[in-house]
Amino acid sequence: MEKKGILIVVSGFSGAGKGTLMKELLSRYPEDYALSISATTRSPREGEEDGREYFFKTKDEFEKMIAKGELIEYAKYVENYYGTPRSYVETKLAEGKDVILEIEIQGALKVKEAFPDTLLLFITPPTAGELRSRLVGRGTETMDVIESRMRRACEEAEGMERYDYLIVNDDLGECVKRMHGIIQGEHDRSFRNREFMENIKKDLERLKGEE
Amino acid sequence: MEKKGILIVVSGFSGAGKGTLMKELLSRYPEDYALSISATTRSPREGEEDGREYFFKTKDEFEKMIAKGELIEYAKYVENYYGTPRSYVETKLAEGKDVILEIEIQGALKVKEAFPDTLLLFITPPTAGELRSRLVGRGTETMDVIESRMRRACEEAEGMERYDYLIVNDDLGECVKRMHGIIQGEHDRSFRNREFMENIKKDLERLKGEE
Repeated sequence: MEKKGILIVVSGFSGAGKGTLMKELLSRYPEDYALSISATTRSPREGEEDGREYFFKTKDEFEKMIAKGELIEYAKYVENYYGTPRSYVETKLAEGKDVILEIEIQGALKVKEAFPDTLLLFITPPTAGELRSRLVGRGTETMDVIESRMRRACEEAEGMERYDYLIVNDDLGECVKRMHGIIQGEHDRSFRNREFMENIKKDLERLKGEE
Repeated sequence: MEKKGILIVVSGFSGAGKGTLMKELLSRYPEDYALSISATTRSPREGEEDGREYFFKTKDEFEKMIAKGELIEYAKYVENYYGTPRSYVETKLAEGKDVILEIEIQGALKVKEAFPDTLLLFITPPTAGELRSRLVGRGTETMDVIESRMRRACEEAEGMERYDYLIVNDDLGECVKRMHGIIQGEHDRSFRNREFMENIKKDLERLKGEE
């Protein structure tokens, strides 16, 4: 079967280790995956490069991208826009790469609407207790900060069941392996291979009549 | 996450190599899988053992099993009954094994109705031409036989899109690996882990209130 790229959204609890996981996945399988780069109107921080961490845009440029439909999804946080440029994603998919967007649930559902075949993955620590330990950190945070993080975790948990897969991040290596296995398996899903099915049916009918 | 067994139906074209594939999968991963044994009213052939190839039943016994709901699905071919005993499947699933039924599409759809979480896998050769070569065999078959096999293949292709995954059997080793990867990945699907999601949500709410 011809290998077409799959659009993948990765979400999960803050503190579930998504960042490290993505980095490891891309470093192990650089040929298979491309990480989508977001556009934003926030200012670059020290060490950030345009086109590497983000595509840095002015508010005016960003709003033009919205108007032209050049973003698959976007959102505004604290006066700054963040969004997923369509062109990069479509180019990489056409190259046969699986393209990963690391965004939260509202964005994930918008992407799924625009691209119904999108694969939604949710990363979770093995238990709520383990998540809390990670959020509490080294004991240097105030109770206010910890409580606000726990409230956020409860909100993040709300949409879990909308995702296709839940991936437990207990051991990094094991988790990367599972994630890669899941994505590779998804390439064989029937609904991603409609053309193959149509062709084999057509060919069988044709060959049935031949000597 | 707790590992629960998945019920798996494997179908595919006659000549796609399902038998060899199943044998190889079970010999490589004996801890993970159990192959369901069908009940039948046909007579044992030489070398066949009750409880190994089939559970051999009288017509009367078989009809009692039907009446008592002891079969997940059954069908009658050429005056003989064939069916899937429920007890073996349920025992193995409870032990955490993934249980494989090798049956055709009508049976597959009945199983899916009784167990909606059943995973449906369809095995196919890479092309219709390749399937035809396998069906033609070594040139010792009559045209009638070949034509009847090709007609059957066309019928078998009808329900392909009802299956969850299409697995191309080109190279046996590669195919076994893909099949195993797909099944392992399926264990992480959200709908197979509802309990885990409910627990983590409940625990997060509880921990949110704690110091």
